[in-house]
Amino acid sequence: MAGSSFGDIFRITTFGESHGPAIGCIVDGVPSKIPLTESDIQYYLDFRRPGTSRFVTQRQEEDKIEILSGVFQGLTTGTPIGLLIHNQDQKSKDYEDIKDRFRPGHADYTYFMKYGHRDYRGGGRSSARETAMRVAAGAVARKALAALLPQRLFLQGAVVQIGTFPAAPQGVWDPLLIQGNPFFAADPAIVPVWQDVVDTARRDGSSLGALVEVRASGIPVGLGDPVYDKLDADLAKALMSINAVKGVEIGDGFGCVSTDGRMAADEMVIQDGTAQFLSNHAGGILGGISTGQEIIARIAVKPTSSILTERRSMTESGENVMIRTKGRHDPCVGIRAVPVAEAMMACVLLDHVLKHRAVFGKGESQ
Amino acid sequence: MAGSSFGDIFRITTFGESHGPAIGCIVDGVPSKIPLTESDIQYYLDFRRPGTSRFVTQRQEEDKIEILSGVFQGLTTGTPIGLLIHNQDQKSKDYEDIKDRFRPGHADYTYFMKYGHRDYRGGGRSSARETAMRVAAGAVARKALAALLPQRLFLQGAVVQIGTFPAAPQGVWDPLLIQGNPFFAADPAIVPVWQDVVDTARRDGSSLGALVEVRASGIPVGLGDPVYDKLDADLAKALMSINAVKGVEIGDGFGCVSTDGRMAADEMVIQDGTAQFLSNHAGGILGGISTGQEIIARIAVKPTSSILTERRSMTESGENVMIRTKGRHDPCVGIRAVPVAEAMMACVLLDHVLKHRAVFGKGESQ
Amino acid sequence: MAGSSFGDIFRITTFGESHGPAIGCIVDGVPSKIPLTESDIQYYLDFRRPGTSRFVTQRQEEDKIEILSGVFQGLTTGTPIGLLIHNQDQKSKDYEDIKDRFRPGHADYTYFMKYGHRDYRGGGRSSARETAMRVAAGAVARKALAALLPQRLFLQGAVVQIGTFPAAPQGVWDPLLIQGNPFFAADPAIVPVWQDVVDTARRDGSSLGALVEVRASGIPVGLGDPVYDKLDADLAKALMSINAVKGVEIGDGFGCVSTDGRMAADEMVIQDGTAQFLSNHAGGILGGISTGQEIIARIAVKPTSSILTERRSMTESGENVMIRTKGRHDPCVGIRAVPVAEAMMACVLLDHVLKHRAVFGKGESQ
Amino acid sequence: MAGSSFGDIFRITTFGESHGPAIGCIVDGVPSKIPLTESDIQYYLDFRRPGTSRFVTQRQEEDKIEILSGVFQGLTTGTPIGLLIHNQDQKSKDYEDIKDRFRPGHADYTYFMKYGHRDYRGGGRSSARETAMRVAAGAVARKALAALLPQRLFLQGAVVQIGTFPAAPQGVWDPLLIQGNPFFAADPAIVPVWQDVVDTARRDGSSLGALVEVRASGIPVGLGDPVYDKLDADLAKALMSINAVKGVEIGDGFGCVSTDGRMAADEMVIQDGTAQFLSNHAGGILGGISTGQEIIARIAVKPTSSILTERRSMTESGENVMIRTKGRHDPCVGIRAVPVAEAMMACVLLDHVLKHRAVFGKGESQ
Repeated sequence: MAGSSFGDIFRITTFGESHGPAIGCIVDGVPSKIPLTESDIQYYLDFRRPGTSRFVTQRQEEDKIEILSGVFQGLTTGTPIGLLIHNQDQKSKDYEDIKDRFRPGHADYTYFMKYGHRDYRGGGRSSARETAMRVAAGAVARKALAALLPQRLFLQGAVVQIGTFPAAPQGVWDPLLIQGNPFFAADPAIVPVWQDVVDTARRDGSSLGALVEVRASGIPVGLGDPVYDKLDADLAKALMSINAVKGVEIGDGFGCVSTDGRMAADEMVIQDGTAQFLSNHAGGILGGISTGQEIIARIAVKPTSSILTERRSMTESGENVMIRTKGRHDPCVGIRAVPVAEAMMACVLLDHVLKHRAVFGKGESQ
Repeated sequence: MAGSSFGDIFRITTFGESHGPAIGCIVDGVPSKIPLTESDIQYYLDFRRPGTSRFVTQRQEEDKIEILSGVFQGLTTGTPIGLLIHNQDQKSKDYEDIKDRFRPGHADYTYFMKYGHRDYRGGGRSSARETAMRVAAGAVARKALAALLPQRLFLQGAVVQIGTFPAAPQGVWDPLLIQGNPFFAADPAIVPVWQDVVDTARRDGSSLGALVEVRASGIPVGLGDPVYDKLDADLAKALMSINAVKGVEIGDGFGCVSTDGRMAADEMVIQDGTAQFLSNHAGGILGGISTGQEIIARIAVKPTSSILTERRSMTESGENVMIRTKGRHDPCVGIRAVPVAEAMMACVLLDHVLKHRAVFGKGESQ
Repeated sequence: MAGSSFGDIFRITTFGESHGPAIGCIVDGVPSKIPLTESDIQYYLDFRRPGTSRFVTQRQEEDKIEILSGVFQGLTTGTPIGLLIHNQDQKSKDYEDIKDRFRPGHADYTYFMKYGHRDYRGGGRSSARETAMRVAAGAVARKALAALLPQRLFLQGAVVQIGTFPAAPQGVWDPLLIQGNPFFAADPAIVPVWQDVVDTARRDGSSLGALVEVRASGIPVGLGDPVYDKLDADLAKALMSINAVKGVEIGDGFGCVSTDGRMAADEMVIQDGTAQFLSNHAGGILGGISTGQEIIARIAVKPTSSILTERRSMTESGENVMIRTKGRHDPCVGIRAVPVAEAMMACVLLDHVLKHRAVFGKGESQ
Repeated sequence: MAGSSFGDIFRITTFGESHGPAIGCIVDGVPSKIPLTESDIQYYLDFRRPGTSRFVTQRQEEDKIEILSGVFQGLTTGTPIGLLIHNQDQKSKDYEDIKDRFRPGHADYTYFMKYGHRDYRGGGRSSARETAMRVAAGAVARKALAALLPQRLFLQGAVVQIGTFPAAPQGVWDPLLIQGNPFFAADPAIVPVWQDVVDTARRDGSSLGALVEVRASGIPVGLGDPVYDKLDADLAKALMSINAVKGVEIGDGFGCVSTDGRMAADEMVIQDGTAQFLSNHAGGILGGISTGQEIIARIAVKPTSSILTERRSMTESGENVMIRTKGRHDPCVGIRAVPVAEAMMACVLLDHVLKHRAVFGKGESQ
């Protein structure tokens, strides 16, 4: 129940603030004898790293991962994996101006009221810096899923809307294409549009919201529990726990409000001896349990509140002030949310694979 | 981690299927000396009960609650509260036709694949019958919140859209008005419209989706944890775990995708010595911690898949079949989701009040 | 973390006081398709039932178990099993005399100070009545272990000392013999001795302590975790949580204090291609992980404090009083602790089988 | 449920092996604004450090603690505290001889069978090196207890028996005296006796068992839960999870087997308006709840199996071999268990203070 842990059997626990000496994570519940190296983790961390394009924050953080335990001779040992990243770019002076002021839209006020103080140097645990450790843990989860799942796992996120500009839906997602543009867009046609709007927002000292979609296939039917620990309920928590996320939907999501029962349910047929669904409105989850289809989740990421425009706010001692947030912030934090959302989905999926196996003896359905 | 429990300190654990002799719940973590009677619980159960209008299922279930432990001389004892409802209307014959067939849009197929068998009489644990116990537990949570919170708790849900027909937003919600119409509508003008569309869906053997909103005020600033156990993350899990829910959003939710950083953040001022927010785009939660404002969550409830229209499906033994779901189903299950969503929010709020108090010594902020 | 639950994956949650209408248990985490009937459970409950001989309390409790959910057509469904026992013999008047007095050696004072009140009719949740549900859950655990373990499970407890009279060690335990005498003695020669001393204690209005040993064989090597969730650590918690238990030891236990390193370690050899230990000082657990040998635990059960001799005590309002505990109490509660201790061991073993399987894919070692 | 964590609200999670680059711990659930420095932790680590006398292992480990997060300007922030110790003396060659051999009495065989491999360089997670992090976490718990408890906490362990030589009971323990001799003996008269026997065992290449007692006073009445999470049950798990511990007892412990009900219960009187117990057979816990008296626990620590005498064993590939354990081992590991046992008790006590406060609003009884 301690708030710095996530997951039941595959369980991650993180520590660290944006401006301390290091951040870290203990990854517990990983089966033994799974190949794992620091590069396996670094690969995913590099997608989240700041400074990779002008569309994300220009902070310099190398985010170099160290494995401190749980791996011996290139294989996991089955014991907890200690992960560490030393912080580098701790420019506390960026925060001097706002030291005793609550930035609107940030956790400054709530954090201060909860803890009776705050670490003004970047938000303490509210900082998105913590998500680096989620990405690292997600990379470990992917390796374990690859070893345990009977089919090849495909798990990929993409930005599907920035501000008022949606991407065109793509039948099949091409990971190379998605990873090859600075927006993690699956639709190449939208890239120049988004360049324009994000550039404009950045120049205006403003920021933009984004819609992120994550898909996973290769997931067996039968994962998830029918009541509280529904697979979609756990995904909802996992994704809503990411900084700046204000909504989560599965499959048709909010679109199902305006449909009717004839349209909403996915019909099934037997084809070549195999169960086939004729559509995927459910997003791969029925009654909280995976159907074997592609799992599809979408999250709404709000525009960051770290903007140059002056806003009304107050100080810790209760004076009215105006505040602008300087510093090197993301004009569209939704972009860097993509690897984080992927990681959280990987963690949830692995935890459910292990839970299912505990009770039913294998990672697949009966 | 057992999937039939929810919450950490205030923790509910349920058992029971729609067609067994009884369903029940153990409510643990309730402080002692809180007034509690069976009527306190029955009051909320009656909002969820079937058969109250022609717009909900016509099954006859009295849903009479019994308190079996944890209350002595009208006060909670601080020990687990055992709750029981005997099932009454176990018409298993309603299910004979679909005994070995998977109803599209239901958990029949996934449940069968997970457990290697299924209880065809109503869906086993996938049945929404389990939600009666959530409502009962939520009623207990409300009593505890009333005793612990420094301000008066207001916690009310309403249906805000059915199919393509949204209600007009109401500045202030009138609980008597909401509870006085069969749709839990806050907007009286929409009631005749929804009567028409739900009647039509019912006559057509179809069903409709709904958007449900739940609001809570009187919640102190400081509840929630800044990382994984964010207040909104726990609400997302709680609400997504309700049957037929496909999306959860907090405050502006998915609307924030198309705003910018100037519009999204809620400004603050000091008025009469008190911190005031000038808007509530955040829905009462910033960085996972309550702001003291109204908490606002919305859920998308899909149209039930139990409809009279024939759909393609398959049998347990792998034959293609056509299937229609007869029986006495809800034309718009979103209506009866209202008391369930309220209950889940009450459970989450109480759990966070207790968690906060564990570490910080009181239910309020520092 | 709610204190009425035990176990992680195989998780039991109980409710109920000695003097309410019923006690109950929710057993979660049981695999599906395991044969289970009410008689399977009743069989073990009957060993714990009061009134079976003059050496145990003469209260009349039939302790008839009802399964309310989780079993369909004689097989577990994989969903939570709801268990209920209606209370029968609620003679509250037995407790009128001690209504506002704290019985020395009982939880009356601590309970009152914790909760700010107490249910004087038998101790509320401190009553050993709760252990009926442990025995019921243990019976379910045994059925699951029988289905999951590769070898036949033998799990049997016995009283090995009452007061100052130890039984002679028996090389092999005969369950029929143990269950066939009122003391659960493995050594037939001690039975007449214990009859005398327990009769004497009963006549004197006193009571006696007991040493109980529980053994399990058929347990595969590899169960348990090397750090906090050691198999012996979980057994220690499970057994110490039984009413009146003041000590737990594994294998040689406290005897190892006075040995040296040459005697304490169990040597191994390969015999017929199989690893064999030459002794079992460790009690079947090394480094928190099962060795495949017999698991041996012992508990110290204190003499009940419900005695006829007058003792000094105080009232709730702070007056000095003398108190004698009338009523129908056990002259040696250690006797009825035997089926409870067996049950707790069964629950711990099953939970660890499932945990091991979660991470390593089977109930056996790699 | 992940096996590398301990505690519910005050929760510690450790990683690290004896021969990796570092070991670490995340301490979660610490209230904010508690003074904490690295020296506060180092003070207790130094009691556990190897090489402080000839009676403990001569390994050179400086065990220098680093706080990586959760402390700002000398005060805890309420967020997780990351702790790290770099390993120094990784003499893997000490282990070359036993690389593929199972040391009798160690976890080598069980560990290998569980994980399908082992880290032969010192036992991996089975190594007592992990207990350094327990001591560090316990030091944090002490600071929090000091801030939260209404009375001054006294928490001190001592060795009370080595081999067959018990210390004389001391009415009051003098911490300076205990910490001032290499055995943590409370009885100065026993020190020369133990010097002789431990020296003899060391010279003989053997080792000795020990009995360790831990006492805590200043603990309010009311901590603990009456059913599974009894204070003594949680202490039993905590203490039994320490390496080499084979038994745990509270108060009179196993001694209560041979007493009767007249002697076993502690009488109470009101003196000067305050409840007073006339004895403490219960060890400060009744019905799982603290009485306000001194809490007394004892553990049996077996003689280490790392001895120079040749023993029969087998290799990983199943060959019979003789094995002697060279290296720099503790002739009586019970000595260094003292600070570890103290730390585990501190962790349990703080967790229960926080749990009690969650439900009842303060750290003290109602």
